[in-house]
Amino acid sequence: MFPETYLALGKNRNMIRELFEYGLKRGREIGPENVYDFTLGNPSVLPPETALKKLADILQGEDPMKVFGYTSAPGDLAVLQQLSESLNSRFNAGCAPDRLYCTVGAAAALAIALRAILLPGEECVVLAPYFPEYKVFIEAAGGVMRLVPADTEAFQIPFDEFEKAIGEKTKAVILNSPNNPSGVICSPETLTKMAAILKAKESEYGHPIYLISDEPYRELVYTGQETPWLPDFYDDTVVCYSYSKSMSMPGARIGYIFTPPKLTEDREIYAAVCGAGRAMGYVNAPTLFQRLIAACDGEVSDLTTYRTNRALLLDGLRELGYTCVEPGGAFYLFPKALEPDDLAFCEKAKALDLLIVPGTGFGCPGFFRIAYCVPTERVERSLTAFRKLAESYR
Amino acid sequence: MFPETYLALGKNRNMIRELFEYGLKRGREIGPENVYDFTLGNPSVLPPETALKKLADILQGEDPMKVFGYTSAPGDLAVLQQLSESLNSRFNAGCAPDRLYCTVGAAAALAIALRAILLPGEECVVLAPYFPEYKVFIEAAGGVMRLVPADTEAFQIPFDEFEKAIGEKTKAVILNSPNNPSGVICSPETLTKMAAILKAKESEYGHPIYLISDEPYRELVYTGQETPWLPDFYDDTVVCYSYSKSMSMPGARIGYIFTPPKLTEDREIYAAVCGAGRAMGYVNAPTLFQRLIAACDGEVSDLTTYRTNRALLLDGLRELGYTCVEPGGAFYLFPKALEPDDLAFCEKAKALDLLIVPGTGFGCPGFFRIAYCVPTERVERSLTAFRKLAESYR
Repeated sequence: MFPETYLALGKNRNMIRELFEYGLKRGREIGPENVYDFTLGNPSVLPPETALKKLADILQGEDPMKVFGYTSAPGDLAVLQQLSESLNSRFNAGCAPDRLYCTVGAAAALAIALRAILLPGEECVVLAPYFPEYKVFIEAAGGVMRLVPADTEAFQIPFDEFEKAIGEKTKAVILNSPNNPSGVICSPETLTKMAAILKAKESEYGHPIYLISDEPYRELVYTGQETPWLPDFYDDTVVCYSYSKSMSMPGARIGYIFTPPKLTEDREIYAAVCGAGRAMGYVNAPTLFQRLIAACDGEVSDLTTYRTNRALLLDGLRELGYTCVEPGGAFYLFPKALEPDDLAFCEKAKALDLLIVPGTGFGCPGFFRIAYCVPTERVERSLTAFRKLAESYR
Repeated sequence: MFPETYLALGKNRNMIRELFEYGLKRGREIGPENVYDFTLGNPSVLPPETALKKLADILQGEDPMKVFGYTSAPGDLAVLQQLSESLNSRFNAGCAPDRLYCTVGAAAALAIALRAILLPGEECVVLAPYFPEYKVFIEAAGGVMRLVPADTEAFQIPFDEFEKAIGEKTKAVILNSPNNPSGVICSPETLTKMAAILKAKESEYGHPIYLISDEPYRELVYTGQETPWLPDFYDDTVVCYSYSKSMSMPGARIGYIFTPPKLTEDREIYAAVCGAGRAMGYVNAPTLFQRLIAACDGEVSDLTTYRTNRALLLDGLRELGYTCVEPGGAFYLFPKALEPDDLAFCEKAKALDLLIVPGTGFGCPGFFRIAYCVPTERVERSLTAFRKLAESYR
């Protein structure tokens, strides 16, 4: 009697969240310090001090009628102006207020952008390992997901498979770099080659193929390797950004869609974005948070904890015999499971109160995800469990 | 190359907003005090003092990791618990946390609820005069809008026409009381009769017909007439609420969907709501504002200005010979235009710098909307223009 897809999505228990809730329950039994929960990609460091101060200033100093009033659908004009200037100074982005559309986070940005770009039956290529909600958003937009298997050596792009996945019906590609779950940043070499393939395919099929860059982890980098700015590599790039991770404010739900000037049919896409957002009931992104990001774009939380955790885990796991591609960003490690069946492997970990997520859920069996956005103490204490787990495979 | 519907929605100039922007421009020419802009339904009074204080308290006193962190998709459990208790004490609502789903305002609530309830091709009945985005949301959900012409005598429900509009394919009805644009509250007698018709139609067609109660103006009442609680009249009611108007915070984008226990297939609808929200990229409603409404549900802005404006305009216009149904709520008057062509009438008003919105846009030609959520001084000064307008028709 109700749409089957929505019923299924609403009833479907999310594996990650189920594991997380198991962890809470288990913590009540044996003490939370004895449960090594690495399930959720939920920032564990404070928002930047400047952002918290700015919020207080806005609430105390600015006119409540403006702070809590409607804005135009893409955002307050002054906010869009400030954001444009920030993006232009940071990335030489060619941004202008009428190229930005503020969203209620990255999920909204993706859901809106996919609806704006895809016609029913058109295909969107996704690279494994991938954030599983991509499939939900693509299908809700009437599109079809084409999954490219992972390059498990480096978690860059397996070009042969990638090229094969792009066909006549391909209208979009989603790229997530730094990546959830691998943490890997696509290198400039990878992006140059990917762009060449996409350009060739655009010529071959005679229509644009849009690269949707999902980049909530853009500023979470640790190795000196910067996150490349995708529109510099490929003209037909739409940028979807969220402040959830960089400013540790996932509950604020604020981000944007940016449609760069080099985009084919840039004005059409922007209009379709506005129209899709409107049809979905996104009146405007919360005004208070619009004003916050206008003032704080580019601010990043103190990443010391993530950096420490990342190093402790990478070194610790490698010493224990685990193999793991060294990731440049995000707050995830994606090591190889110690048996081919990652689900069985994660069950064995669970028996040691080590909660990690099977790679299968990310389209990449044989691996597992560690979300190291947790207190460092948990990382330190967990290494014993990781050791026991490794020993059980000797 | 992009979905036509979204392109059209994105490019379509909104008449109300265009008029509003004309007003801004005209104000720069002749002084803003000489433009009598009654176009936007944008609250003009401050948020409740208690709400502003609560926001400051949350930001200063509560853990930023919680205030800015993710919540579960329907909302933070403690928030849902507090909201349930508030609704139960205010309306004896039979609410529980697993019956509430926090949304990014009423537009999101409607867009989600309609997607959850309607199968492709199913019909949703709407009563004129109506908020034009209903059509957008219904069609985006794959549904078909059936419009019932207005009862222009009282702006209650024209029962004959209403009954005729309900057929085999009717799955939902949207009711908006207090109404935008008429300001009228449906009386208990109207609701009793409407419920009897709907129940009879449910029996006749052998399937539920859901009443979607869009009630952002619930607390904006002026005549001692309370807004009836719809689930008390009709079991198959889904409540969509927003704090935008009651707390003068439209930019905060916060509201909820409530699925009462008496609803046919209540658990299925709730699951479909969760699924539709997920597919649309609504991860969770902004956490800060969830916490605010948990503490402040039922708080209402000081309505003195609206009450004053309403009385000044009703009396003033009637003295000038205008006829207007006396509305019990919201912040709109919907008088009869002085000629059958409301578009021409509003153009004549515009020439007097009086910016009012033609009823045609609300599915009710021959009338016009005055949004009196403006400074009282504007109302007072506008009466001269309303007089000149009336005189031009003598």
